[in-house]
Amino acid sequence: MYLLAGFAASLGSSVGGDGNGHTALDRRMMRRCVELAKRAAGKTRPNPVVGCVVVNDEGLVVGEGFHEKAGGPHAEVVALKYAGIHSAGAKVYVSLEPCNHFGRTPPCVDALLNAGVGEVFVGMVDPDPRTAGKGVDRLKENGVKVRVGIEEELCQSANEGFSYRIRNKVPLGTWKYAMTLDGKIASDTGSSKWVSGEAARSIVQRVRSESDAIIVGGNTVRVDNPRLTVREYRSDGLQPIRVVMTSTMDLPKNARLWDVSDARTIVFTRVSAAESKPELYDHLLKCGVEVMLREEICPRFVMEHLYGEGAMNVLWECGGKLAAEAMRNGCIQNVIAFLAPKLIGGMEHSPLSNFGLQDMSKALNVCNVRFEQVGKDFVFYGRVENTG
Amino acid sequence: MYLLAGFAASLGSSVGGDGNGHTALDRRMMRRCVELAKRAAGKTRPNPVVGCVVVNDEGLVVGEGFHEKAGGPHAEVVALKYAGIHSAGAKVYVSLEPCNHFGRTPPCVDALLNAGVGEVFVGMVDPDPRTAGKGVDRLKENGVKVRVGIEEELCQSANEGFSYRIRNKVPLGTWKYAMTLDGKIASDTGSSKWVSGEAARSIVQRVRSESDAIIVGGNTVRVDNPRLTVREYRSDGLQPIRVVMTSTMDLPKNARLWDVSDARTIVFTRVSAAESKPELYDHLLKCGVEVMLREEICPRFVMEHLYGEGAMNVLWECGGKLAAEAMRNGCIQNVIAFLAPKLIGGMEHSPLSNFGLQDMSKALNVCNVRFEQVGKDFVFYGRVENTG
Repeated sequence: MYLLAGFAASLGSSVGGDGNGHTALDRRMMRRCVELAKRAAGKTRPNPVVGCVVVNDEGLVVGEGFHEKAGGPHAEVVALKYAGIHSAGAKVYVSLEPCNHFGRTPPCVDALLNAGVGEVFVGMVDPDPRTAGKGVDRLKENGVKVRVGIEEELCQSANEGFSYRIRNKVPLGTWKYAMTLDGKIASDTGSSKWVSGEAARSIVQRVRSESDAIIVGGNTVRVDNPRLTVREYRSDGLQPIRVVMTSTMDLPKNARLWDVSDARTIVFTRVSAAESKPELYDHLLKCGVEVMLREEICPRFVMEHLYGEGAMNVLWECGGKLAAEAMRNGCIQNVIAFLAPKLIGGMEHSPLSNFGLQDMSKALNVCNVRFEQVGKDFVFYGRVENTG
Repeated sequence: MYLLAGFAASLGSSVGGDGNGHTALDRRMMRRCVELAKRAAGKTRPNPVVGCVVVNDEGLVVGEGFHEKAGGPHAEVVALKYAGIHSAGAKVYVSLEPCNHFGRTPPCVDALLNAGVGEVFVGMVDPDPRTAGKGVDRLKENGVKVRVGIEEELCQSANEGFSYRIRNKVPLGTWKYAMTLDGKIASDTGSSKWVSGEAARSIVQRVRSESDAIIVGGNTVRVDNPRLTVREYRSDGLQPIRVVMTSTMDLPKNARLWDVSDARTIVFTRVSAAESKPELYDHLLKCGVEVMLREEICPRFVMEHLYGEGAMNVLWECGGKLAAEAMRNGCIQNVIAFLAPKLIGGMEHSPLSNFGLQDMSKALNVCNVRFEQVGKDFVFYGRVENTG
């Protein structure tokens, strides 16, 4: 799937540099690459999202493409194919360094060289050690002019999970919760429908659609019985893996998550818990739920398993106790906090239980905070400092 | 104290109406009245804040004034005095209806009539039943043209506490708290220094300076030992009354609040608690602390007492338990919530304990929400729905 740009690059092509010798056209084209790349967010695991634009010497876009899913053609190949004979001598913008290795498809560097492109603009170097600068080097060795680092921050951010996964051998963890203006995710009786309004919940759908797996605790299954599938944003059938962490296996026999016709469900629990509930264990297996048993379970182990599944972005949609365990295990890097302007009162249901901090001056800072108003609610996006 | 406007009203005096026949000049002058009025915010109890501007027939400001403190001259009198002979035939803008009764000063209506003003523009009618429209009526009866309701919302908001106090026979309650992004006002060990940053704390100073009294619980005295005086914003020596509510009188012998050289301190406690701590009771009295004894104490009683003291705006700066009691008693109308982008975790210290709500769908809505970023923190201002 790709889109041929109807938008001609009538941009005053060389007006305004950014001090790195990148023109306004270069930056605009790279932003377009990222836009294209993000169309496949959540669908490419374990591959990065990549977008590519081919521009001829008149500054006209002659080809565009993005990487749609693992095993499918890479962005460069799609864009070059579209550009056809116009690729020769053209400028190629690509949000991530072209690969130089054989994976499920041949190296993109070969495709670029074969097409005889004139110049390649790279958003960021590939953190994958199989490429990691080698793609750029090989293009240069073959006489192609290469520029690296245009709109690099934007490109990095589009592949945050991909890069984190490669560097850390676990997926990037994002913790999402919704609380009232008095800091509660539910009333003392456990009532939580709904903290935030419809507009906010639609953002949750988007966030889920960009995730490879969603983790909840047993209590969420018992109380909320969620489906955890992506409705509005994902019509292609590729759903995040739904993960339940429970040390007791105190789970209902009927739950929406046990219907695996839409999406996979994995339950992580302790061997002893499964042994104590043989009927439920059999029932889950019969439903097609994957049950992973271990002497003890912890967030780190679950994240390592999901790494093995190719997951890059994992969403924690859990209560305060599991969130605290995940925080203590270093499994949460990003925060998405919804704040609803209402007051419920209570002492029981805070978003985050004690995870070992005692002194307010030692609180974990959340940095790079962005926020927006959605309907009546507010949403804060941020990164937990010093979590990799 | 007053200020003669250096700013000539070169405003295109009649451009743009608001549909009520008010010109741009009218609205601009009334906004100036509110600006002037607010200079005395927190200093006029039990009087309203009022500002007045006198404009001659060339559209020039010839006099300005505001009501500085109870017992001092009213805004109109100050402005008319400044305008002198220019008052004759002038337009007078005043943010609140001129009084028509003898209080500590003669009626302003008389002053306006004696000055021979031409037209009077009134922001809002006085909710005080002693005036309540009678000021406007008497001006009209004496042939003065009067217009009412210019920038009325702004004028109402400047005297929110004044009007609330008159309507409800208790002061307006504002609850202020600072919490982390995970909804905590302190760590599980009680550590709360500091949740929010310096910029946010400077807003707290302003809010205190506009309050007539500040209420804390005994625990705040024990743990934080606050001074609760206004530093930056108030050099005139008039400080809010500091109030401690404690059912146990479990209070330290030495606390900053017992030094009443800067500001009054009132301790509300139970008779039996005082009886069980005769030494402390004597000590407080010797320090000059006022101790109010009752069989049982509750937020409502305290607010009624403060009403008797002339208080219009009372600030609740308390922990979750007392905040919940105040909420249950209907003693909180406004909320000022600081949100610090940090995570501390924990189960103990939420801003608001259970105050009787069970179902999330019944949560109290906070409406008219305004918010701003202050330093790294965020602050939300809102009104609790259905609280008068």
